[in-house]
Amino acid sequence: MTTEFDVRLPASPTLPAVERRARIPAGFLAGGRAAGIKASGRPDLALLATVGGPAAAAAVFTPNTFAAAPVRRSQAALAASRGWARAIVSTSGCANAATGAAGDADQVRVGELVAGALGIGEGEVLHLSTGVIGTRLPLDRVAAGIDALVPELAATGNGFEAAATALRTTDSTTKLATVTLSLPGPDGTLHDVHVSGMAKGVGMIHPRMATMLSVILTDAAASPELLAAILRPAAARTWNQLTIDGDTSTNDTVLLLASGASGASPVIAGTPSAATLALAIEAVARDLARQQAADGEGATCLLTCQVTGAADDADARAVARAVVASSLVKAAVHGKDPNWGRIAGAAGNARLADAAVLEAAGIDRTSATTRAGTPAVVDPDRLRIAIAGHLVFDGAAGGPQPFDRAATRAAMDAPEITIRLDLGLGTGYGEAFGCDLTEAYVRENSEYTT
Amino acid sequence: MTTEFDVRLPASPTLPAVERRARIPAGFLAGGRAAGIKASGRPDLALLATVGGPAAAAAVFTPNTFAAAPVRRSQAALAASRGWARAIVSTSGCANAATGAAGDADQVRVGELVAGALGIGEGEVLHLSTGVIGTRLPLDRVAAGIDALVPELAATGNGFEAAATALRTTDSTTKLATVTLSLPGPDGTLHDVHVSGMAKGVGMIHPRMATMLSVILTDAAASPELLAAILRPAAARTWNQLTIDGDTSTNDTVLLLASGASGASPVIAGTPSAATLALAIEAVARDLARQQAADGEGATCLLTCQVTGAADDADARAVARAVVASSLVKAAVHGKDPNWGRIAGAAGNARLADAAVLEAAGIDRTSATTRAGTPAVVDPDRLRIAIAGHLVFDGAAGGPQPFDRAATRAAMDAPEITIRLDLGLGTGYGEAFGCDLTEAYVRENSEYTT
Repeated sequence: MTTEFDVRLPASPTLPAVERRARIPAGFLAGGRAAGIKASGRPDLALLATVGGPAAAAAVFTPNTFAAAPVRRSQAALAASRGWARAIVSTSGCANAATGAAGDADQVRVGELVAGALGIGEGEVLHLSTGVIGTRLPLDRVAAGIDALVPELAATGNGFEAAATALRTTDSTTKLATVTLSLPGPDGTLHDVHVSGMAKGVGMIHPRMATMLSVILTDAAASPELLAAILRPAAARTWNQLTIDGDTSTNDTVLLLASGASGASPVIAGTPSAATLALAIEAVARDLARQQAADGEGATCLLTCQVTGAADDADARAVARAVVASSLVKAAVHGKDPNWGRIAGAAGNARLADAAVLEAAGIDRTSATTRAGTPAVVDPDRLRIAIAGHLVFDGAAGGPQPFDRAATRAAMDAPEITIRLDLGLGTGYGEAFGCDLTEAYVRENSEYTT
Repeated sequence: MTTEFDVRLPASPTLPAVERRARIPAGFLAGGRAAGIKASGRPDLALLATVGGPAAAAAVFTPNTFAAAPVRRSQAALAASRGWARAIVSTSGCANAATGAAGDADQVRVGELVAGALGIGEGEVLHLSTGVIGTRLPLDRVAAGIDALVPELAATGNGFEAAATALRTTDSTTKLATVTLSLPGPDGTLHDVHVSGMAKGVGMIHPRMATMLSVILTDAAASPELLAAILRPAAARTWNQLTIDGDTSTNDTVLLLASGASGASPVIAGTPSAATLALAIEAVARDLARQQAADGEGATCLLTCQVTGAADDADARAVARAVVASSLVKAAVHGKDPNWGRIAGAAGNARLADAAVLEAAGIDRTSATTRAGTPAVVDPDRLRIAIAGHLVFDGAAGGPQPFDRAATRAAMDAPEITIRLDLGLGTGYGEAFGCDLTEAYVRENSEYTT
């Protein structure tokens, strides 16, 4: 019996190993507590702050037109500071989205409260929030919470975990990831450098608009420009390949801060140290994205799609995303059904929308400078598909392959199911993360709760 | 209490009224029967044929890279004939997709069988199919079915309905729509002209790859070029605005045939007759699309989104599609939850992917010749949202509006729920059709059946 095909592995270096535990990088304090924003009384206020001077910062924000007040406040602060910040405040239970000018003023007030309590400037505070859309922040409770929380902030893993817990809404787990690397100091000796991340989502919240938040801290020393140059492609390969139900929220935010407190020398773009730091940050981002996918609403398993042999990496990522985003594929995965027809159909749809967009914009597909305009990124006669290690389709060998259905179904009865596609066209590689589509997802999102 | 806002109605002429019954236009024969392709023994073979000469023909096909053998055979036939055909054959139960060269040969053989039985050329036969992917057609049963069906073909509504029934797979209804119009003959007297359509989907099939098929017949006289010029924009405003779960199948096909047998004069592009015919065809297409949406898998209601006040019609359609395609909106509609935050969030995502595609292709957004590259098609400060007739959000009036939640929930307990958005930016209009997302959808698509 033929099983999984040999995969031409991507040329990119292997990501370092990740530990799923709370470790706070040097130069930061963290904490979290219940401030009463959530009716449940669960932790809903998180604070992260630098110990010394400002940290270099980079961010990725939701492109949603309805970007919430905290998103716009963080964008403005980072633009004004050119990428420096001293604190992050997160409120759970109220998104402060679609609240107009009053909501913007509320968010500035939150920044003032944090700045006052920490003795820093309001423009040095970055904001995260998640929760109900269209309701105002309970400023009095937030103020009391900040006053109570600041004295509790700690340079400990417990403080970091408390902050991560206060980020949660309906998440069933606290999502943590940390990588330790070694970078040289001024005298050439190696220093331990930590990259630690926390994330929430994509569990939905009352009224259940999916929100995905993440903070990554490091004690490496790096410029805002280098952090941005590292974060953008890392997010493209990880969070932008994560799909639970295709909705992009008003509050999605990823923040990356570097304190420089590790003792290692500043990391310069283009050096081996920069490459090492970038891999560590991407490893943390990827692991958090996988934790988020596995904890998707109603999900019973993590669905990973790995695509090799694409014309380029962007094509590979597009195909992987199309497979993981397909409701039909997700439902089949839930049913442990090795339904390769749905996978082939989803792959056959990848980038078709892209081509339509270019055509609508009057762009000649053949003149586009990238492959985005090429409609066919998959050739049915070259495509191979393997589900949970079992080859089920080989275009070059006539298409459908005989396979052990019972064994494949058994292999699909696992906490992580991997679908692999080899396109046979080039060396492009990409992956995407999602989860199965379950009746529980529908139930949780259709029950009347607002 | 404020209720629904005044809508600036689109400038386009009103579509004519549609009857949901079987009426066959002059110049055609039709029939359907059980040929044994489906294990269930239900009707699975449909034939439509011209009585006299060839009919002018136009078509819209799936853009899926894995286009099935019948799709590719129809495309080749229409390309060779320059838009003329004498018959349509449809097989249900086997998609003949992902079957390689053998499947292509099978489909040609089906055409030869039909051509032989009808005394026409194989290149004059168009093909439709829907069903299991990756299995071969049972040619012997198809051959026997064609031999039995040809003598039964009739120029009657019953024959038309039998064909429509044989198109069905898991559809819970036979989908029919017909419009009668009057067009002048050579002597100036008016002739009754009929436009009649049938459709299947979007119920899924074993192994449940969604397929949407439709045939529209008319006894108007029109050139293939005029039919194509009418069908393309009509499909863009109707079927391309229909979404059940976002998957585009390997077999999606719409065929439009004109026999010219009504006695009316040939319809010439640019004349009032052409405009009248175009409206009739669009009315049939729109009504069939709405029937398909209402019969979406597991659906309990039809979800219509109407968008006014957009910068242009394309923007309006994009926003309407984004709302109807959102899993979170669909689940909320199922729960009769007037969750305007999800609607605003979905609208805020419209066209963002388009902008990303253009950027990836190296296209300067500002230089694009259409608005496809403009990321913000919605302005939160101008947007108004009404759910089932109740105004729930008005950006110009501070955002969230007080509304009678119980009355809105009661109004949402209906077979059709309409969400209206006014963007307050221009005069662009568009609509989209979908259905609620239910636990039944997940159940039907995750049960192991292959």
